Amino acid sequence: MSEADTTEAYSARLSAADLRDAWHVLDAAERAEGFRLLDPTEGEEFFIELSTVDQVALIDSLSPAERRFWLRALAPDDAADLLQETSAEERELMLSMLDDASRREVRTLLAYAEDDAGGLMSTRYARVRPEMTVDEAILYLRKQANARLETIYYGYVLDQEQRLLGVVSLRQLFQAKGNALVRDVMHADLVSVPEEMDQEAVGRLFAQHDLVALPVLDNSGRMKGIVTVDDIVDVVQEEATEDIQKIGGTAALDAPYLEVSVLQMFKKRAGWLVILFCGEMLTVSALGPYEDDMKRVSILPLLMPLIISAGGNAGSQASTLVIRAMALGEARLSDWWRVLRREVLAGTLLGLALGLLGLLRIVLGDAMSDKRYEPGVRVGDVAITVGISVLGVVLWGAITGSMLPMILRRLGFDPASASAPLVATLVDVTGLLIYFGLATALIISTLP
Amino acid sequence: MSEADTTEAYSARLSAADLRDAWHVLDAAERAEGFRLLDPTEGEEFFIELSTVDQVALIDSLSPAERRFWLRALAPDDAADLLQETSAEERELMLSMLDDASRREVRTLLAYAEDDAGGLMSTRYARVRPEMTVDEAILYLRKQANARLETIYYGYVLDQEQRLLGVVSLRQLFQAKGNALVRDVMHADLVSVPEEMDQEAVGRLFAQHDLVALPVLDNSGRMKGIVTVDDIVDVVQEEATEDIQKIGGTAALDAPYLEVSVLQMFKKRAGWLVILFCGEMLTVSALGPYEDDMKRVSILPLLMPLIISAGGNAGSQASTLVIRAMALGEARLSDWWRVLRREVLAGTLLGLALGLLGLLRIVLGDAMSDKRYEPGVRVGDVAITVGISVLGVVLWGAITGSMLPMILRRLGFDPASASAPLVATLVDVTGLLIYFGLATALIISTLP
Repeated sequence: MSEADTTEAYSARLSAADLRDAWHVLDAAERAEGFRLLDPTEGEEFFIELSTVDQVALIDSLSPAERRFWLRALAPDDAADLLQETSAEERELMLSMLDDASRREVRTLLAYAEDDAGGLMSTRYARVRPEMTVDEAILYLRKQANARLETIYYGYVLDQEQRLLGVVSLRQLFQAKGNALVRDVMHADLVSVPEEMDQEAVGRLFAQHDLVALPVLDNSGRMKGIVTVDDIVDVVQEEATEDIQKIGGTAALDAPYLEVSVLQMFKKRAGWLVILFCGEMLTVSALGPYEDDMKRVSILPLLMPLIISAGGNAGSQASTLVIRAMALGEARLSDWWRVLRREVLAGTLLGLALGLLGLLRIVLGDAMSDKRYEPGVRVGDVAITVGISVLGVVLWGAITGSMLPMILRRLGFDPASASAPLVATLVDVTGLLIYFGLATALIISTLP
Repeated sequence: MSEADTTEAYSARLSAADLRDAWHVLDAAERAEGFRLLDPTEGEEFFIELSTVDQVALIDSLSPAERRFWLRALAPDDAADLLQETSAEERELMLSMLDDASRREVRTLLAYAEDDAGGLMSTRYARVRPEMTVDEAILYLRKQANARLETIYYGYVLDQEQRLLGVVSLRQLFQAKGNALVRDVMHADLVSVPEEMDQEAVGRLFAQHDLVALPVLDNSGRMKGIVTVDDIVDVVQEEATEDIQKIGGTAALDAPYLEVSVLQMFKKRAGWLVILFCGEMLTVSALGPYEDDMKRVSILPLLMPLIISAGGNAGSQASTLVIRAMALGEARLSDWWRVLRREVLAGTLLGLALGLLGLLRIVLGDAMSDKRYEPGVRVGDVAITVGISVLGVVLWGAITGSMLPMILRRLGFDPASASAPLVATLVDVTGLLIYFGLATALIISTLP
C-alpha cells in the first residue's frame, strides 16, 4: 500500500504532457522511471502514442511483468509493429507473453512486410451479414462497443467465404428503415486494397478519396483486415520524411534526428558522401587535359564554380519536383516524354536567363575593372563562352535531374535516391566538359 | 427525354475511375465534357474528391446553373477552400449562389487564413448538452444521421456560453448506462487547438495522438468547429510537398507538377536560381587574388570542384535533416545547441573520412602517373592541403546546413528555404577561401 501511495503522490506532479515534453532529453532509465510515475490510464495512452522505436526501447528497460502488461495493452497491429523492430529471440519471448488469440493475430500480421497494406492493417473489424436487417445490424454493432474492435462505425458485409460484398456505416444504418436488409442499404461499390499494396500507395488512396478506413483483401477477394486513417497520417509523414532525407543525400534515419546516435548518423550519411566524393574525383581527371588552357587563360578556372553550380541547382530543382510528383502519383513512368518535353522547355528558358546574366557579368566586369585578360583573349569570346555554357549546363541539369528519378524507378530503385547532391555531382562532371569544350573552341583556338 | 437517354448511354461507358485516369491528359473543355457524362452520384463523389485547384478550373468551365449546383454540393469548409482560390469578384458571384445558411458559414470560414486550424475546420459538428442522459444523447446523434454534419460519431459537450466541456463518442455512449448523464461519461481532458494554429502543427497533433477529430476553440474557450483526420492526410501531404519543393530550391508549385504551365514553372524556379547564380558570382571575385597561384601550381584549380562539392553535399545532408526534424517537431529552436554539437561531431567524422580519401587520391594519383607537379611543389604538401581543406569544408557545411534552418525560423522565415542549393552556394564561397587559404600557407609559401 505504501508504494502505491508514493506513486500516487509522485504522479500528481508528473503528467503525460510533462513527460512528453521532457522525453527527448531523458535517457532510457529516466524514461522508464518517468513512465512508471504516470497514472495507469494516462500511462496506457502515453505508451500507445509513442513511436514504435520508443516503445521498443521503453519495453526493453522494464521488468518482465511490466513488459507483459504493456504488450497486452497494444492492439495486435501495433504489437506486430513493435515486434518487427526486435531481434528474433526477443520476438519469441514477447510473443509468449501474449494471450493465445492475440498471439495468433500478431503472428499472422508479422508474416506481412512492414510497409505493406497487410502490415498496416488491423484484423479487428466488425463483420455483418448481408441478410441481417438494419435494426439487427445496429444492435450488433452497438453490442460490439466493448469489444476490442478498431471501429464499430463501419460494418463489413461478408459472404460465407469471407469475401467482401460491401460496407455499411452506422450512420447509413441510422438513416435506413429498420426492417430493410443490410444487403440493400450497403455500399457495394467500394475502394479496397490488396494485401501486398505498398503503404505509400495506400496513403495516396486515403488522400485522394478522403476515406476513414479501407478494407484489405487477399487475391481471391477475401477480407483480411482494415487500415484506418489515423495510422495513415503517420505513414504519409514517415514516407515524406524518408523521401526528404534521401533527397538530401542521406540514407533514411528511421528515427527522430535527435535520438539517432552520432555514430549511427555518421553511418547513414557517410555512404552517399563517399560515393559522391569518389564520383567527383572524376572532375580532376576530366580537367587534366585543360591544365595548360587554364594557365594560358586565367579567367577560365575562376568561372568553374559559377558554371557548375548553375547546372547543379537546376538539376536539384528538377529532380526534387519529379521525385515528389512520382511519390504523389502525379507523374508516372509513362509520362516520361511529357516530363522531358517540359524540362527541356523550362531548362532552356532558365538557361537563357542565367546565361544572359553570366554574359553580362563578364562584359560589365571587364568594363568596370582595370584588370585585362591575357593578350589575344577577347572579352566577347569569354562572354559568349560563359553564356552558352550556362545555358548548356542548366538545360543538361534539368534533363538529368528529371530523367534520373524515372530511370531509377524503371530499374526498380527508389526515385528519391536521385538526391540533389547526386544530380549535382553528375552535372558537375559533364558540365565541366561542356564548358571547357566551348572554351577550347571559342577562346583557345583563336589565341596566337 | 432524348438528351437524358444519350447521357445515360454515354455514362455507361465512362466511369469516375476512367475519368480520373485520363484527367491529367485532358484539357479544360474535355474535362468538363467528361465530368458531365458521369452519373449524378458518381459525379458528386468525383467533384468532392478533386483537388481545390482542379475544382476551381472545372467550375470555371461550367455553365452558371451547373456551377450553382456543384457549389451547393460542397460542405462549407470545402466551398471556402474553393472560394479562397478565386478572384474577389468571382468570389462574390459564387457566394451569391449559395443558400443563406451556407453563405454565412462560408463567409465566416473565409475570414480565417487558409493554413490555420480555423481555415481547415468544419462548423458542422454535433453538439450535446452535459445534462442529457446517455439514451437521450444516443437518440439525438441518431437523429442527426440525415443532417449535413461532418460526423455523428462524436458529440461535443458545450455549456451555455458555447465553451467546450468535453467530448463523448457514440461508442462510449453505447458502453455507458442509459440513464447516466453525459457530463459523467464524457472525456473532459481533451486535446483541442486554437483557431489560429498553423495547419502543420495541427497535422503533428493528429500524428502524435492518433486522433479522428480535433475541436477548434477561440481565445475564450468557445467552440468554433472541428478538424477531421481525413482533411489532415491532405494537409500532411501538402506540407511535405511544399517542404520538398523548397528543399530542392523551387518556390512551392501549389499544383500538380504536370498541370503547372511551363511559364509558371519558369517563374517558380527562376527566382532562386537567379539569386543563387548571383551569389555564386562572388566565387569569381573571391578567387581573383589566387589567379597567379593557380598559374604557378596547376593542380590547385583542378581540385576546386572536388573540394567545394564535398562541402555542399555535407551541407545538403545537414540542412534537409534539420528542416525535417523541425517540421516534425523533433527539433525546436531551443535545441540549437544540441543540434550544433551533434553536427560538429558528425561533420568532423565525415570530414576526416573524406579528407583521408582526398589525401590518398593525391598520393596514389602521383604514384601512378608520370605527370609531375611544378618544381618545388611537394606531393605531401598538396595531399595535406586537400585533406585538411576537405575536413574543413565538410565540417563547415554541416554547421552551416544545420544552423541556417534554425536561423531562418528565428527570423520568422520558413526553415525549408534553407534549400540544398542555397546551402551549397554559401558553402562554395567560404569553402574556396578555406582551400586557397590553406594552399597559400602550405604550398605557395614554400615555393622558391
